Amino acid sequence: MEKLLEGKCEACRADASLVSAEERKILMPQIPGWDVIEVDGIEQLTCSYAFKDYLSGLDFLKKVAHLAEEEDHHPEIVLEWGKVTVSWWSHKIKGLHKNDFIAAAKTDALFSE
Amino acid sequence: MEKLLEGKCEACRADASLVSAEERKILMPQIPGWDVIEVDGIEQLTCSYAFKDYLSGLDFLKKVAHLAEEEDHHPEIVLEWGKVTVSWWSHKIKGLHKNDFIAAAKTDALFSE
Repeated sequence: MEKLLEGKCEACRADASLVSAEERKILMPQIPGWDVIEVDGIEQLTCSYAFKDYLSGLDFLKKVAHLAEEEDHHPEIVLEWGKVTVSWWSHKIKGLHKNDFIAAAKTDALFSE
Repeated sequence: MEKLLEGKCEACRADASLVSAEERKILMPQIPGWDVIEVDGIEQLTCSYAFKDYLSGLDFLKKVAHLAEEEDHHPEIVLEWGKVTVSWWSHKIKGLHKNDFIAAAKTDALFSE
C-alpha cells in the first residue's frame, strides 16, 4: 500500500478531484486518530492532540506551521491550554484532496517525534 | 479612566464576579475591534487580525501565547492562512472577567508593535 508519510503535497488546482469513497477506505486507516467533519458544507480532516501545558502545545503548533510552509498547504490550527486541534482541507476544491491525508499523516509523525 | 493596558490579570477564583453591564460600557470602547460572542452558553471576547501570510500570523500567535504565559491566562488562538483569531474568556467563572478585557487590550498592543 502506498504510504501517506512518503507522499508530498502537490499543487492543488481548482479542477482537482475530491478523494473518492474508495480512496478514503484506503487512506483513513493510515490516520486512525482523525475524523472527517463538515464545516459550512465543506469536509475537513480534524484531530486534537493533548499536551501537559500551553507552551508544549505551542511547540507542536510551530512544528505543524513549518510543515505547512514546506508543503505549501496550510491548515487551521487551534491552540488552547493543553490541547491543539489541527484541521486540513483543500480550499480550492472545497473539500478533501489526497494532500490533506498526506498532511494529516505528517502531522501525526510530528506529534510522535 | 482606568487604562486596561496598565492592568495585570489577577488570579481568577470560581467565585469571582462576571463583569457587569455597566463595567462593560466603560471597558468595550477601550478594545474597539473586539466582539462579544457566545459559545456553548459562555460569553467570549473575540477579535480577528489579518496578516500577509501564514508565518506572519504565526509570529503574532507566538507573541500572544507568551503574553498568556506571563498573565497566567490562556486564550484560544486560531491560526489560518493570513488570519489569527484570539478569544479570551474566564473558564472558572464561565464568562467574562475584567482579566479578559485587560488581555484583549494587551493583544491589540502586540499587534500594533
